[in-house]
Amino acid sequence: QEEEATPLEQVQQKVEVHDGAISKLNALKISGYVQPQWQWGQQDAGLKVGGGNVTENDNKSAFNRFGIRRGRIKFTYDDGGIATGVFQLNIVDKSNASGVSQAVVQLKEAYLNVKDPWNGTLQLQAGMFDRPFGNEISYSSSLLESPERSRIIQTLFPEEVDLGGKLILQAAKTSPWNFLKFEGGWFAGNAINPETNNRKDFIGHLTATNVIGSTAKWGLGASYYNGGVYQGTANVYTMAGNGFVLNSDPNNLSKYAKREYFGLDGQFSFESPMGMTQLRTEYIWGTQPGSNSSTGSPNAAANPTTDTYIRKMNGWYGILVQDLGQSPFSLVLKYDSYDPNTKVKGDEIGATATVAGAVKTNKADLRYNTLGIGGLWRINPALRLQVFYENVKNEKSANLASTTRSSDFSRDQLDDTFTVRLQFKF
Amino acid sequence: QEEEATPLEQVQQKVEVHDGAISKLNALKISGYVQPQWQWGQQDAGLKVGGGNVTENDNKSAFNRFGIRRGRIKFTYDDGGIATGVFQLNIVDKSNASGVSQAVVQLKEAYLNVKDPWNGTLQLQAGMFDRPFGNEISYSSSLLESPERSRIIQTLFPEEVDLGGKLILQAAKTSPWNFLKFEGGWFAGNAINPETNNRKDFIGHLTATNVIGSTAKWGLGASYYNGGVYQGTANVYTMAGNGFVLNSDPNNLSKYAKREYFGLDGQFSFESPMGMTQLRTEYIWGTQPGSNSSTGSPNAAANPTTDTYIRKMNGWYGILVQDLGQSPFSLVLKYDSYDPNTKVKGDEIGATATVAGAVKTNKADLRYNTLGIGGLWRINPALRLQVFYENVKNEKSANLASTTRSSDFSRDQLDDTFTVRLQFKF
Amino acid sequence: QEEEATPLEQVQQKVEVHDGAISKLNALKISGYVQPQWQWGQQDAGLKVGGGNVTENDNKSAFNRFGIRRGRIKFTYDDGGIATGVFQLNIVDKSNASGVSQAVVQLKEAYLNVKDPWNGTLQLQAGMFDRPFGNEISYSSSLLESPERSRIIQTLFPEEVDLGGKLILQAAKTSPWNFLKFEGGWFAGNAINPETNNRKDFIGHLTATNVIGSTAKWGLGASYYNGGVYQGTANVYTMAGNGFVLNSDPNNLSKYAKREYFGLDGQFSFESPMGMTQLRTEYIWGTQPGSNSSTGSPNAAANPTTDTYIRKMNGWYGILVQDLGQSPFSLVLKYDSYDPNTKVKGDEIGATATVAGAVKTNKADLRYNTLGIGGLWRINPALRLQVFYENVKNEKSANLASTTRSSDFSRDQLDDTFTVRLQFKF
Repeated sequence: QEEEATPLEQVQQKVEVHDGAISKLNALKISGYVQPQWQWGQQDAGLKVGGGNVTENDNKSAFNRFGIRRGRIKFTYDDGGIATGVFQLNIVDKSNASGVSQAVVQLKEAYLNVKDPWNGTLQLQAGMFDRPFGNEISYSSSLLESPERSRIIQTLFPEEVDLGGKLILQAAKTSPWNFLKFEGGWFAGNAINPETNNRKDFIGHLTATNVIGSTAKWGLGASYYNGGVYQGTANVYTMAGNGFVLNSDPNNLSKYAKREYFGLDGQFSFESPMGMTQLRTEYIWGTQPGSNSSTGSPNAAANPTTDTYIRKMNGWYGILVQDLGQSPFSLVLKYDSYDPNTKVKGDEIGATATVAGAVKTNKADLRYNTLGIGGLWRINPALRLQVFYENVKNEKSANLASTTRSSDFSRDQLDDTFTVRLQFKF
Repeated sequence: QEEEATPLEQVQQKVEVHDGAISKLNALKISGYVQPQWQWGQQDAGLKVGGGNVTENDNKSAFNRFGIRRGRIKFTYDDGGIATGVFQLNIVDKSNASGVSQAVVQLKEAYLNVKDPWNGTLQLQAGMFDRPFGNEISYSSSLLESPERSRIIQTLFPEEVDLGGKLILQAAKTSPWNFLKFEGGWFAGNAINPETNNRKDFIGHLTATNVIGSTAKWGLGASYYNGGVYQGTANVYTMAGNGFVLNSDPNNLSKYAKREYFGLDGQFSFESPMGMTQLRTEYIWGTQPGSNSSTGSPNAAANPTTDTYIRKMNGWYGILVQDLGQSPFSLVLKYDSYDPNTKVKGDEIGATATVAGAVKTNKADLRYNTLGIGGLWRINPALRLQVFYENVKNEKSANLASTTRSSDFSRDQLDDTFTVRLQFKF
Repeated sequence: QEEEATPLEQVQQKVEVHDGAISKLNALKISGYVQPQWQWGQQDAGLKVGGGNVTENDNKSAFNRFGIRRGRIKFTYDDGGIATGVFQLNIVDKSNASGVSQAVVQLKEAYLNVKDPWNGTLQLQAGMFDRPFGNEISYSSSLLESPERSRIIQTLFPEEVDLGGKLILQAAKTSPWNFLKFEGGWFAGNAINPETNNRKDFIGHLTATNVIGSTAKWGLGASYYNGGVYQGTANVYTMAGNGFVLNSDPNNLSKYAKREYFGLDGQFSFESPMGMTQLRTEYIWGTQPGSNSSTGSPNAAANPTTDTYIRKMNGWYGILVQDLGQSPFSLVLKYDSYDPNTKVKGDEIGATATVAGAVKTNKADLRYNTLGIGGLWRINPALRLQVFYENVKNEKSANLASTTRSSDFSRDQLDDTFTVRLQFKF
């Protein structure tokens, strides 16, 4: 017969069992965040929660809405092996993918990451995840210091995520090359929707990040997007002079319009007696196929069926986050700009076309600049209060005048917004 | 060099590590319930699972359906700090928000609760959660002794939840005032849907609860709802004599009809050799704007577009739950009543209007009384079997006679139901 | 005063507390899988990810799609008591229940299992779960060696699951009868959708499984399905000669067409120096009500509204999985066949009806045979790479010739597929 274990040995055995059980339990990490907010907007503002503005008491003026801007639960399985799996669900009162009813839970991310078993230099990621372009797309929505990403990001990269596969290359931590990271791959080009054609879009991002002493950090990145948008009709318009010239070659139908973006991004942060200072900026330019009335990227479960309008565009943002000493408060200043059509400006927009037979530009070609100013109160590591005012200025054109205030683009639209948001993450 | 830890010290260290890991794991609590049921109904019954009644074998008579009445998973994050976050998902075969396809997972609750850091007297809650009105709304669906909430609750407060913010005030446990609790706040007034207008509805509930000796408990509450329903047309009808009189002032359009409820609720329970006895009751009265054919509250992602009919209504329920000694069985008796229009009764409904030009009332103005009798078998703490018969009686009016049985409201409708349900919670 | 606990006793106490906490945490098991894939198909193939084939660059030829074939999270609550609850969510970019938009999270399973408290011989299961018919339906999608289930399974049993209740009977492990297992019950007959009529479908499966020595295992099963499909019109067609004869008795409307399947299944596996060898096969035959153009089973939230066509059908599959010695690689060979209408073959299909007034058969009556060959690389216990080619052959009929290639069923359709899939489970 075996000797009976001593009390200490018995405890040791139990603790070993617990060790295994806890490891297993820790392999699945459940995190999430919820962001209820109250938002106010001038009469033509586009608020991110609640239904659009309506006439009330015979009046359509400034309006406000309460809602859950973001509700997320993320399941990450990582047992220390080479493969990691991630699901993220979107749980809000107003679904943000087109055509889906309210209060419906949606997929936000679902992917698989496989590391090479040797030193993790090479990773393969496949599924639905953030596009590897620039810095703001993959900046977590739970940490974002402005309520929303910049207008150019929202327009070019709806939903942040796309369906595809990418490689990640980064030297081991011990290597002098560890400060460089490359991510690149091929994507469906269709945001959160199923793939609808054979054409894959390449997206790549190369970054360098490092520290300066013990108080400062910098990062630089360059991005490239090379894809195509399905031409749903034979009519393809390109800019000539101040208008769009039609090419209606029947062969245009079912070919691809070039979708090409270039991006540069930079980040810098340092600590001082004034508190931590963060600066981030990004500049993007390139060619965007769209429709007559929109320059948004494809975000639907079917190929486009409208005429194609090809525009040269550019835009940028800069954000400054200044902590107030060691207090839990920060000031935030952000400026962003998106010019959907760099070939025309001001009164040229909507003007009679200088080229015979060309189509006039319209309000979809106006540049928008947004100045945002706000504050953060980091109540505790999990909870933050955000207040933010956004002053949105559109380019004005005398040729887009109207007697109806909300259609009168010879003036600045009434579309400022003010946001009060609670951000809780776990 | 350090001295090596003794075996006991090593175990102590590991146990400390486990302590931290277990605390972290315990911060996120996942609970839920699933309630499969078989339900039978007379030919015009409204069952809560499955599709509606259809002609079968040339006959449209009593019918039965199998389904999952409620499927819920709730994620509660509470690490002991001042903020708590909650998500609850609704996972059933038949979605209960309007216009959404089957088998779709939906948001049920999503909110954030922040306690004041001093003594927790004051709490702020924001997001989508149960309306603070009366007792039955927030009585957990996993514990409900009748299959459904009362008709008046289902009609006035669809989906139980609304989008908004509330304050909770309750003195510390050590205070003599701890037996009092106030909850009140402003809500979108639109159930589970996004907010569609500026008007916020106030809802408040004041309760007193206490014990009598060691065997009895009582609770009393008073509630108030003060809101508005968007008038989608210029036509607003109010009762005069036995009919609805039209006010078609163009200014009515886009104004708000007053939605105002008052409520009183009481609970009493005591233990005796016969077993635990519970009594709960609630009385609600007020003004409800609706349409010609319905007195249900707004529950859609858009403002109403129909003419507004304003009615005075009232209703109540009483429920008795009697445990059978120390056995796992309980008897349940429930009576509930909802009168959508207290100004007319019996044959007055549907009668020719006494006021010239007034619109006749109709079946939407009939009172419904439901007598329910059922039993519970508490198989174990997690599992319960519920059987319940509901005898539904509508008010009868000779002026709503019809040769079609299901439209003949001069008689009692054939709408009794019988429910057999398994309730599992974890 | 109590004596203070010794250090060892203190640790013992803490470990006891941990024991309880870990048990509670272990009661809820969260598992899941994610399967991103790239799939290629000939021009008329039906791929399981992405949108259908479209004309591109003036051409509609072979196409490929990237997508998440399956994304699942499963919550199983089992605290060792008699009741177990299960929820499984479906999280993919393309929803697989009809009529639901993309990226919407859906219910896949939701059920409750109750064991008898004595020796677990008898179990009752209620809710939404796999139909107890044959072997492949309940073979986990995370383990499937072919990308999809066989055509006959997909056609007769869409979504695998149905809504209902079943009994499971299996003698205790100590009993000589433990090798036998019976599962049977009644189901809505409507796949993942709510029940739409009173008729319940019986499904039963009897299996015997055992080992031979320490290296081999076998299983045999017999299944029966006896249900009914709602006749949405008075027109019911049955086969006579080579065509469909109409019975248009008005009484047919709202009666039920018999849906009856018989099934036999067998499994055999053994280990040898060549590696593990697995063989599985299943043969199903019976009567399937459908429409003129489809033999798929009901899978919608409403009763059918089309004319009923009743066909005798049969089909089978056989799969061989051969591990390559002790390597992480396996070869997979699968053959499956589905003949939706056993009364006609080859050129008889689409031929002029021999019985006066009968309706001709059509492409829905063609048999399909699929030969699949593939490989598996079991990278680690959680991760597997699957490559698979499927050669799909349809029955040919000179009477279904067409000058359009994709409608020409006098030839084999161009519908082969090739799948590369990563399978991660946790």
